[in-house]
Amino acid sequence: MSITTVAFDGDDTLWHNEGLFTMTQERFEALLADHVSADVLHARMLDTERENVAVYGYGVKGFALSMIETAIEVTNGRVDAATIYRILSFAKDQLRHPVELLPGVGDVLTALGGRYQLLLITKGDLFDQESKIARSGLAERFDAIEVVAEKDPPVYARILARHDVDPAAFLMVGNSVRSDVLPVLEIGAQAAHVPYHLTWELEQADAPHEHDGYWELEHIGQVPELVAKLGGTA
Amino acid sequence: MSITTVAFDGDDTLWHNEGLFTMTQERFEALLADHVSADVLHARMLDTERENVAVYGYGVKGFALSMIETAIEVTNGRVDAATIYRILSFAKDQLRHPVELLPGVGDVLTALGGRYQLLLITKGDLFDQESKIARSGLAERFDAIEVVAEKDPPVYARILARHDVDPAAFLMVGNSVRSDVLPVLEIGAQAAHVPYHLTWELEQADAPHEHDGYWELEHIGQVPELVAKLGGTA
Repeated sequence: MSITTVAFDGDDTLWHNEGLFTMTQERFEALLADHVSADVLHARMLDTERENVAVYGYGVKGFALSMIETAIEVTNGRVDAATIYRILSFAKDQLRHPVELLPGVGDVLTALGGRYQLLLITKGDLFDQESKIARSGLAERFDAIEVVAEKDPPVYARILARHDVDPAAFLMVGNSVRSDVLPVLEIGAQAAHVPYHLTWELEQADAPHEHDGYWELEHIGQVPELVAKLGGTA
Repeated sequence: MSITTVAFDGDDTLWHNEGLFTMTQERFEALLADHVSADVLHARMLDTERENVAVYGYGVKGFALSMIETAIEVTNGRVDAATIYRILSFAKDQLRHPVELLPGVGDVLTALGGRYQLLLITKGDLFDQESKIARSGLAERFDAIEVVAEKDPPVYARILARHDVDPAAFLMVGNSVRSDVLPVLEIGAQAAHVPYHLTWELEQADAPHEHDGYWELEHIGQVPELVAKLGGTA
């Protein structure tokens, strides 16, 4: 069956995201440098995030709450209010940061637009994602946009059903093996992995190199060629 | 035209919500009672929330970040880390609080289910809303569920288009004049206002008593009767 529908992840696929978390994390480490080493703080922060993801979900607000919790715990309560206030300002800076597209994104969407049904399927905080989509200037390039709380096989199956897409005609493009590749392969669709140079530890997973529906790309500019190879409709 | 589709708001329409914010706010006021009166803290907190809603959106996580910001500002930075840690625990308590349905909700959905297309249209944090919907046990009672970041006329118009519903055949039921009534009337549909005993100050708006499509109810149990009166399909 030919590909009729190509879906793209947002964060770190269409626009930079993890780099902003890294920027905030580095500001956080510098802020607490008198109290704790960057390595220890990084590890403690990851523990906090791992514990909190079930109650906060993904996104900058939960990240900010976890930074504050970690700062208090790692200093045994000696962190002062001014320092915590700085953490709040880091979070607001990140939420307001301009959305920067990855190289080649515009050309790829131009090449595919009108010839394929294009979806944007992005995970995370609804308010923040909608704000980023609006600021990206890409909203009009997609036939539909889906913001989801988690990317798992039932969620992908529901999106495909809603848009009347056969899994065999669906290609997902994204930077996360865990969110954009594995659950998509599980419902019988195909997935192109376009790695980003940074991956959040909680998103890491091994690539399913031996799977027939898995495609490893070097950059997003290779997507049109892949779609043509997979027998696109155009 | 007859009503074919009835949509319900979630928070404070199907389940208690504002009461949980009030509970957290009261714990926050008690926590800072040595620093500031409840009245002053309440007013300062509302100022912070009003300023932050554009960057945080709606929901408990933004509320928590605003509480911390307010606590630091109102104490001129004298609040200690242990107190801020308590605020974090209040937010987690609220996020994990059991979902309590309002009286009559189950009966109303039973009366309408299968005879009308039933939608749940709820605003706020995606992760928290999905969690509440799951814990409410009501997910299966609806033909579709839409979580949106803001309830305005374009958002309602998109939802109706997606589900192929003529505005003249659509009734929205909710507790918020600002979110569940005014934008719905603006797209030519009808709205039933079922007041909750608490309304967040930033949600308050005057009811459009003179509008033909506006219905003021005392409790959700009156919805089936209203639908019948509006010439429901069943």
